[in-house]
Amino acid sequence: MELVADNIHVINPIIAAALEQLDPVPFQQMARECEEAGASAIDINPGPLRREAEVRMAFIVEAVQSATKLPILIDTANRAAMEAGLEAATGRTILNGFSLEPSKVKGMIPLAKKFDVEIIGYLLRPDGHVPADASERLSLAVELLHTFQGAGLDSHKLIIDPVIVPVSWQNGTAQAGEVLTALRLLPDLLGFPVKTIAGLSNLTTGKGYRKERLLLERTYLPMLFASGLDMALMNILHRDTVQAARACCALGGESVFAWEEIS
Amino acid sequence: MELVADNIHVINPIIAAALEQLDPVPFQQMARECEEAGASAIDINPGPLRREAEVRMAFIVEAVQSATKLPILIDTANRAAMEAGLEAATGRTILNGFSLEPSKVKGMIPLAKKFDVEIIGYLLRPDGHVPADASERLSLAVELLHTFQGAGLDSHKLIIDPVIVPVSWQNGTAQAGEVLTALRLLPDLLGFPVKTIAGLSNLTTGKGYRKERLLLERTYLPMLFASGLDMALMNILHRDTVQAARACCALGGESVFAWEEIS
Repeated sequence: MELVADNIHVINPIIAAALEQLDPVPFQQMARECEEAGASAIDINPGPLRREAEVRMAFIVEAVQSATKLPILIDTANRAAMEAGLEAATGRTILNGFSLEPSKVKGMIPLAKKFDVEIIGYLLRPDGHVPADASERLSLAVELLHTFQGAGLDSHKLIIDPVIVPVSWQNGTAQAGEVLTALRLLPDLLGFPVKTIAGLSNLTTGKGYRKERLLLERTYLPMLFASGLDMALMNILHRDTVQAARACCALGGESVFAWEEIS
Repeated sequence: MELVADNIHVINPIIAAALEQLDPVPFQQMARECEEAGASAIDINPGPLRREAEVRMAFIVEAVQSATKLPILIDTANRAAMEAGLEAATGRTILNGFSLEPSKVKGMIPLAKKFDVEIIGYLLRPDGHVPADASERLSLAVELLHTFQGAGLDSHKLIIDPVIVPVSWQNGTAQAGEVLTALRLLPDLLGFPVKTIAGLSNLTTGKGYRKERLLLERTYLPMLFASGLDMALMNILHRDTVQAARACCALGGESVFAWEEIS
């Protein structure tokens, strides 16, 4: 399982301030911290970027790349910023945020083609709403793949995100189960071992209950892993969750187990 | 998920000494501790009981029952001790240790009939060896169910244990995956939601690496849960593992999530 850091996010006040001041240092520091903590890729989410979107996105990508050679995920709803990010990226780059929403299909497919990058497709309804259950997620996955293939893109470049919702939603626990079911059934349904990613931090969005949120994270992650998840987008500075991920990988490994792997 | 304490086990020196001296107090104390720690049942494993097997088994069952009303599991290879334990038991009782080994079939089926108790059947080969993979486990499950039904027993009284092996075995990690696959496929294969149990402590049997063993336990348990496990036989005094189990249950719950459930 690859661990993708979601730490370079505009909701972090340090990141928001650095973005405002175009100061590369906090981005570089965070990128290095993420790598040291075990990230195998870094998601860059600068928010909607209302002003100077292209300059700012390129600036962050360059700052992050000056500190680490890890792959990056371009994660913004701003189409111009996406393109600027892709232009600035030099290593493996993944475009995050695709779905069946018409604006995404129209805006992102040409970018995925032009830059020949992997793209993360969310199992969301065309109106942006979260599907009700696993079965609706699976229909959306089929439609997403058809759209992708119909545009002449290589299906192996599609990474599917089944959309974790906050457990505190009224149907949050049911949705947590539906996500697992969808993950488990996707490869057979689509007929190939489609890559998957899920945003673990979404599960426990909100304030308070820090200890309990960490407990849920480190408990749900092995469930996702057992259901076939390939990439976890997560707060890589949550040490216990990273430990759980390492234990998952050790348990799911092909080689002879060694205690040292997880100590 | 029900949590079954495996703490009343002869490998615990305090339990071994209490058994030697027929002292009920350590059994009572441990039973109370298990209940307080969150056990929903208690496994009683006094070992092979070479001397005064019947007296000793009945003694332990009575001692445990004098301290708690929790269901008990009678877990000994000694046929006479099994029967004495079942005679002494007053509440819900489960007979642990059935398999396709001829001596088990011959010895335990009549007991399950006579006492009309649930019985835990291990997916072991008739020679007592551990199956190679999920597929062999599933064949053994079918055979186990046929044997059970052929003897006129109610299939809903069979609880299947897919047999967790130490992760340190040469094929330990592969086996950890095979157990999950078997658990996931069992209900469809057998055609009803067969109850399942697994011995979590087996995963990390051995000395040393205490921190790492606890990490593996609390990581593998959610994987088992996500694969459909109904009952976890475990060291109920491992607080982090119990917390993980509570988080599993909260995530897998039908009702609206409440943070208080896991705090």
